Amino acid sequence: MSVAKELEVANAEYAVSFSKGHLQIPPKRKVAIVACMDARLDPARALGLEEGDAHVIRNAGGRAADALRSIIISQQLLGTREIVIIHHTDCGMLTFTDEVIRGKIRSDLSQNADHISFLPFGDLKQSVFDDIKVLRESPLVLDVPITGFLYEVETGKIVRVEDNL
Amino acid sequence: MSVAKELEVANAEYAVSFSKGHLQIPPKRKVAIVACMDARLDPARALGLEEGDAHVIRNAGGRAADALRSIIISQQLLGTREIVIIHHTDCGMLTFTDEVIRGKIRSDLSQNADHISFLPFGDLKQSVFDDIKVLRESPLVLDVPITGFLYEVETGKIVRVEDNL
Repeated sequence: MSVAKELEVANAEYAVSFSKGHLQIPPKRKVAIVACMDARLDPARALGLEEGDAHVIRNAGGRAADALRSIIISQQLLGTREIVIIHHTDCGMLTFTDEVIRGKIRSDLSQNADHISFLPFGDLKQSVFDDIKVLRESPLVLDVPITGFLYEVETGKIVRVEDNL
Repeated sequence: MSVAKELEVANAEYAVSFSKGHLQIPPKRKVAIVACMDARLDPARALGLEEGDAHVIRNAGGRAADALRSIIISQQLLGTREIVIIHHTDCGMLTFTDEVIRGKIRSDLSQNADHISFLPFGDLKQSVFDDIKVLRESPLVLDVPITGFLYEVETGKIVRVEDNL
């Protein structure tokens, strides 16, 4: 069975007891969360989010530069006024460089990906600092509170790494 | 209290009973899910995902073009071999055009965002077809099963819109 089919089966159960059909588009808690796509991180469970609470933007590494389009839409059209960035321990982004993945694509797919920056990083805390800076310095992002956390995949805990510099 | 502070309080509860500290980086179910950042959609709850199961990539609209960097990393470095795309009813992306948001940014922020494509869409099903096509036609994306769904924010149900064209 494809995973897609399994998801349909699981969703049928979810829908049976669904009671959130009345929610509005703008996030109730006026926050946009930028987090890594990592399978071990479940932002809703780990952060106590209910349906309707928050925009959740996720990509490889939880990188701000790659979330900019979504953050601008979130702020300009849907009223969020706080940003939370969540990177995490044991992140895959710590394990490669642009050169490594471009080389793999060249050898395995016979394709050139030299035009893509994959945004890996060598230091976890620094990656959060860097991403807060990207957002603070963007003239397209509102001057709102931005808080950075590291999620520990070993313990389930979030640890604040920077607060409103 | 900032939302960030509230998330820390909620996370402390999550961490107390956390038992998933042993999970590996590659997603157990070898799937990458691309979904909208919408606050009303909780992919884990709605699709029966446990921590460790799947990469979850989210952005405004759940657009494939904006998820490409993450999908390539997911496939090339972390072994996923299936993609699921989830857009949803009542999506904010149906309510504006590039011209509208660029105009708002010009008038409210005195900034020029004409270089950014915000990827809104006028037809929900078509947006899923378009995104499947983007991935199928990219030479940087593996030839894997891709399934598109619409999530109904009114009922909690996912409805398949296309399967392995």
